[in-house]
Amino acid sequence: MQRIEIYDTTLRDGAQGEGVNFSLDDKVLIARRLDEVGVDFIEGGYPLSNPKDAEFFQRIAAEPLANSQVCAFGMTRRRGMTPAEDPGMKSLMDSQAPVITIVGKTSAFHVEEVLRVSEQENIDMIAETIAYFVGEGRRVIYDAEHCFDGLKLNEEYGLKTLKAAADAGAMRIVMCDTNGGTMPEEIARYVNLVAGAVDKPVGIHTHNDCELAVANSLAGVDAGATHVQGTINGFGERCGNADLISVMANLALKKQGYEVLGGAQTDHLTELSRYVYEIANMGYRTSQPFVGASAFAHKGGMHVHAVNRVAHSYEHIPPESVGNERRVLVSELSGRSNILAMATKLNLQEDKELMDRILREVVELENQGYQFEAAEASFALLVQRIAGTFAPHFELVKYHASTESRGGSPLTEATVKLLVDDEVQHRVAEGDGPINALDGALRKALKGRFPALQQMQLVDYKVRVINSEAATAASVRVIIESRDADGETWGTVGVNENIIQASWDALVDSFEYKLAKESRAAGG
Amino acid sequence: MQRIEIYDTTLRDGAQGEGVNFSLDDKVLIARRLDEVGVDFIEGGYPLSNPKDAEFFQRIAAEPLANSQVCAFGMTRRRGMTPAEDPGMKSLMDSQAPVITIVGKTSAFHVEEVLRVSEQENIDMIAETIAYFVGEGRRVIYDAEHCFDGLKLNEEYGLKTLKAAADAGAMRIVMCDTNGGTMPEEIARYVNLVAGAVDKPVGIHTHNDCELAVANSLAGVDAGATHVQGTINGFGERCGNADLISVMANLALKKQGYEVLGGAQTDHLTELSRYVYEIANMGYRTSQPFVGASAFAHKGGMHVHAVNRVAHSYEHIPPESVGNERRVLVSELSGRSNILAMATKLNLQEDKELMDRILREVVELENQGYQFEAAEASFALLVQRIAGTFAPHFELVKYHASTESRGGSPLTEATVKLLVDDEVQHRVAEGDGPINALDGALRKALKGRFPALQQMQLVDYKVRVINSEAATAASVRVIIESRDADGETWGTVGVNENIIQASWDALVDSFEYKLAKESRAAGG
Repeated sequence: MQRIEIYDTTLRDGAQGEGVNFSLDDKVLIARRLDEVGVDFIEGGYPLSNPKDAEFFQRIAAEPLANSQVCAFGMTRRRGMTPAEDPGMKSLMDSQAPVITIVGKTSAFHVEEVLRVSEQENIDMIAETIAYFVGEGRRVIYDAEHCFDGLKLNEEYGLKTLKAAADAGAMRIVMCDTNGGTMPEEIARYVNLVAGAVDKPVGIHTHNDCELAVANSLAGVDAGATHVQGTINGFGERCGNADLISVMANLALKKQGYEVLGGAQTDHLTELSRYVYEIANMGYRTSQPFVGASAFAHKGGMHVHAVNRVAHSYEHIPPESVGNERRVLVSELSGRSNILAMATKLNLQEDKELMDRILREVVELENQGYQFEAAEASFALLVQRIAGTFAPHFELVKYHASTESRGGSPLTEATVKLLVDDEVQHRVAEGDGPINALDGALRKALKGRFPALQQMQLVDYKVRVINSEAATAASVRVIIESRDADGETWGTVGVNENIIQASWDALVDSFEYKLAKESRAAGG
Repeated sequence: MQRIEIYDTTLRDGAQGEGVNFSLDDKVLIARRLDEVGVDFIEGGYPLSNPKDAEFFQRIAAEPLANSQVCAFGMTRRRGMTPAEDPGMKSLMDSQAPVITIVGKTSAFHVEEVLRVSEQENIDMIAETIAYFVGEGRRVIYDAEHCFDGLKLNEEYGLKTLKAAADAGAMRIVMCDTNGGTMPEEIARYVNLVAGAVDKPVGIHTHNDCELAVANSLAGVDAGATHVQGTINGFGERCGNADLISVMANLALKKQGYEVLGGAQTDHLTELSRYVYEIANMGYRTSQPFVGASAFAHKGGMHVHAVNRVAHSYEHIPPESVGNERRVLVSELSGRSNILAMATKLNLQEDKELMDRILREVVELENQGYQFEAAEASFALLVQRIAGTFAPHFELVKYHASTESRGGSPLTEATVKLLVDDEVQHRVAEGDGPINALDGALRKALKGRFPALQQMQLVDYKVRVINSEAATAASVRVIIESRDADGETWGTVGVNENIIQASWDALVDSFEYKLAKESRAAGG
């Protein structure tokens, strides 16, 4: 078994992707999850480029990762100064990252036309920068930019730069196909050449401009690379980086003789992929290889018939091996098991007729745009409503939310009129926005009767437009995450053409879930 | 130059993709466009499976294609009857398609477990079906289902089925990786084997389950296949088929010695890709290789600086070669050069002091959560505001948006009071939600003075909560995309703690951008 190192750059190269924008907290959450999964290296960012990345490294230094090594990214020192004088080097030292990833130029063309220094000066910049960090006790990974284009243009000079990096003490020499234009056979030829020419392990870093990033990563590994760089879900500039989800699945499950994640199971890959989409607030790609919702979906009667008899004959791997599931004709089979699981969790006896009604309802709601993966509380309430075991703690008479601006900062006010134990509660609140105001008014109307609500707070609020063709008239899915004093968190969902109504539905579910929990606690 | 045949199955395999649904007219439109582009074969459908496909072939027979050959898809005859007795064969004859594509089984496992006939009967079914159509004067393409899995399982039997098809008169033997699980090196080995074993040209048909469909198509071609099957944009069941856009671009522009589309230019590919998305009423994939809106987008100050000097050094091909274009994005990581590029596009002379102010403002706004990469119209307006060249077409006196529900579906109403040419315009509208109602009221208030606004519509509305710790009090980024009658689309952005205000700001920018465009057009 050849162990292949996985180097994740979702937080740096991935953040370059159009529409990808991570907050500091987003970055820390993703790093912790990658650490759990057991990725070897996590590139946290480019501390010189912005304060957010610099702060990320302080957060990690304060609470180090358990399994992964965090890497700080930077460039070779500027021309005409020593590394110690370069502010970029200082920001990398300040990051306290145990591993420093230095990118340098391999292509004589870029050295002259872009960097505008002599070929020798470029080599000195690479060697001195790496030697500086090695001298400071850091481990250094060298990313060779435009490596394949450079070797094609001037093989002798390209190899010189790679050897200089290796001799200066870099622990890995990573060959980057920066423009993503290299064909698999060229990747294989040059990786093979370099693996024989330098005395350090070689890595491969590819981009998807020719829809070959995954194939190129595998070609690099077959040619001798033992280190693969990429991003979760293939996030990245232009057409993205190599999708580590597909790379890891192919190496661990499809090809022979390779091991990733220290042999850990790959059945976390679907969860990992979706977690990163959620943090980035991006929709899943249903057709995504291995982990997409459609990756193991079967269509067409004869097909399904055969699938049920000899599933593996229509699936290249068992869906469970990547934590995904088979879907046959809508969500019927998958839906059924979820519902059974949920119903059992709710101590509803297995009533086939009830299960069928729930299933029909779920399918109907999913068609409307509901998603219960991140809204189990709403799902639990739905099951109870259908089962007839749901007793609402309050009834809506009406709500009203209005926002007005005369040019300055807007004023928002919401009123809520409820029936609580046949008593009318009519309250008003202001807020930073209509949802915040409705939340405030709802709490005012309920806190007298249900003081426990004060222990609960909303911790996340996500909005996604579902069929965006219709623009502002499109239907909207709101997911609210709430947390209780005891640390329990739950998600609720609302879908409506009207964002206020969708938010209201998710709010009410969140309050009802908390109140039902109190009743149970009270033995009610 | 080795000519590679392109066989498009967007209308049959592609239509199996989740969310893909073509009307009869859609199918005819796409077929005509593929014919113009010069694809060799167009698989129109499976006439036995549904009347729509049967009718498609009548439409094409009535008005034949100019360059492409239309193909009707079907299976081998059923067991225990002659081809002439089989209704499937009849529907294929009735299609009048000059080319018949027959799919048959290659894998002994599928013959026994799924088809449940003897190995010899399967071979007879293949041979007799093909011979029947050849006897009827049709040209036959043979699609060998599960070809690679079948050869891996039982090479001798698999080869027998392929030879039977060739001997029966099939003009092409197409090796299908039906489950999409085969690795490129296996594709190469078996294509090479089959190309040497049968005396007919060999084709390759791959699926993207391992994110290798394009790589596998290229590996097949390098191993001797001269015919490639796939779909435009990679539409298809599960993870999709090989994307013919990427396959054609790679063969024509990236690899050596191959020719597609009879040497026709590949600069129609972007248009073709987007046309098919439009007909399918699906959004473009911005990160799609070669033709995506981000495929040649550049982000990150240092990079852009270099791109402007030596573009080709950061692009693997010239964007024009596939009919795409370069875009320079403004982003968190942007340096002055991004701003310069945008400013130059806006014909602002290079005023260093102005550039500094713009840069400071952009950095400040990005810290607040603004993102301009998907909102170039807002960026253009921002630059004009800072440059003092912005003249607003209307002034806000006040707006008001309110939503109320008494339990049923909510009622939303918005009022807008504006100063337009010193005249007060005060209007009210209802809507599906507050944004929709504000849009309606704004249009009412402006349409008298600016009738051109009727040509513009909102086509997308995106909401992103930025710092979600604060839940409903978090600040919200709204991005609105608008489209004009001439097809131009533009994005605008608003950020505020209040989602109504953020949406209002993005709406106003969108309207101002359109009005500024009108003024320019009017030479104003």
